[in-house]
Amino acid sequence: MDNRAIGVFDSGLGGLTAVRRMHEIMPEESIIYFGDTGRVPYGTRGRDTIIKYTLQDINFLMQYDLKAIVVACNTASAAALDTVRGECPVPVFGTVEPSCDKARSVTKNGRIGVIGTAATVRSGVFERSLCGAEPALHVRTLACPLFVPLVENGRVQRGDIVIETVVREYLQPMRDAGVDTLILGCTHYPLLRDVIADFMGGGVTLVDSGAEAANAVRRAVAPAADGAGKTRYFVSDDPAGFSQLASLFLQEDVSGPAGLVDISAY
Amino acid sequence: MDNRAIGVFDSGLGGLTAVRRMHEIMPEESIIYFGDTGRVPYGTRGRDTIIKYTLQDINFLMQYDLKAIVVACNTASAAALDTVRGECPVPVFGTVEPSCDKARSVTKNGRIGVIGTAATVRSGVFERSLCGAEPALHVRTLACPLFVPLVENGRVQRGDIVIETVVREYLQPMRDAGVDTLILGCTHYPLLRDVIADFMGGGVTLVDSGAEAANAVRRAVAPAADGAGKTRYFVSDDPAGFSQLASLFLQEDVSGPAGLVDISAY
Repeated sequence: MDNRAIGVFDSGLGGLTAVRRMHEIMPEESIIYFGDTGRVPYGTRGRDTIIKYTLQDINFLMQYDLKAIVVACNTASAAALDTVRGECPVPVFGTVEPSCDKARSVTKNGRIGVIGTAATVRSGVFERSLCGAEPALHVRTLACPLFVPLVENGRVQRGDIVIETVVREYLQPMRDAGVDTLILGCTHYPLLRDVIADFMGGGVTLVDSGAEAANAVRRAVAPAADGAGKTRYFVSDDPAGFSQLASLFLQEDVSGPAGLVDISAY
Repeated sequence: MDNRAIGVFDSGLGGLTAVRRMHEIMPEESIIYFGDTGRVPYGTRGRDTIIKYTLQDINFLMQYDLKAIVVACNTASAAALDTVRGECPVPVFGTVEPSCDKARSVTKNGRIGVIGTAATVRSGVFERSLCGAEPALHVRTLACPLFVPLVENGRVQRGDIVIETVVREYLQPMRDAGVDTLILGCTHYPLLRDVIADFMGGGVTLVDSGAEAANAVRRAVAPAADGAGKTRYFVSDDPAGFSQLASLFLQEDVSGPAGLVDISAY
């Protein structure tokens, strides 16, 4: 038994899709969530900036008595995890390795696609992780920079010509490449699951990177005692507006505003 | 004659549409441009954060020997100008007042529309500026949160179903309201001029807020001596990627990378 909390952070609120999964599979755990809403998005920024922001996010979380940290942001996982892991006194779980493990276990034809932000794709870590373990895999990565703003503006429904057009344009090369497994390498993308699944077709398995990170931390850490854990939320901007957008990602009601953090001070 | 430079800043690179106008109408002026690309966008953030970021932007620029500062960002102009103007030792020109002056001078039916970011619209400054001077005006404001990411992803062309759909959805209420003048209250929006003009129709005058800020500073400051001024560019992220996106906004080639600034230190 280990009743210490698990820290989770993301550039914004997309990481709440990982928290949602944690609430489902490990409701006894207490969670400290930080969303860097004052500097979101990370996915369009350069590597040095992403590393700097990620270290500050971890420094903030490490003020609490934690047993693990989940980097619920593919951009930070891809660009900064190797750098920050060595500097953190508790285990750090990213989204990349668990997603790659899952994708390798489900692919039948050895053709795996990865979609994510520009920074995630530029990093090359998905290819390295997938092919490092299994060199014969065919891996295709693709940046989908409009998905995050479209999700944040609620353009996630079937029948919306805007999101359907952008999904088709971005993902046609994935369909042409014949992938049977597609890693949703950004924690915003599970909200586009229906539209992406419709376009890719029923034969393609979608891997939810936030959920896989949650699965990984559950397998690795000593659980808390039975009973309901408590989740506390912090953001670096607009705590009053947190609840509304948060409930979109969590698919559950969030009561009250989040705490406000001056993240540049960490 | 005053050969000191003019400082210009924006949350990102949209403010370069103001620099473009300055290059046209006052080529003898030297310009120091700062784009806060490490924290862009401002338009989705809360007021306190926008004020904090704007003060840091001005503190950075004030290291140089300036005769004026142009806030080439409607969000910062709307949310922070009143606060920062008192703390700045040189004249500060925003986008709001010059745009409103222009709109009042061109409207025939007294119906003026303003489009901008969520933060700009929430601030209410365009209504106050327009109606404070002329209470009988009918002013309609509208947030267009997807315009900035769509512009930054190059979705600006006539015939692009994505931008045309979003323009139609956002601007239908403006057409219904019968405005004859529409303030493009975000320095990204001039890149959408063709698509917006097509939808609004030939009877509607579009006011370019960045260009109007440039016109205002030209009218107010003592000019530099004849000869070509020099423009220097600084950003808070990804200086190497600056040139490509910058040339989109400037419509001229930008040689070499921009300088990198750790803006949180100001």
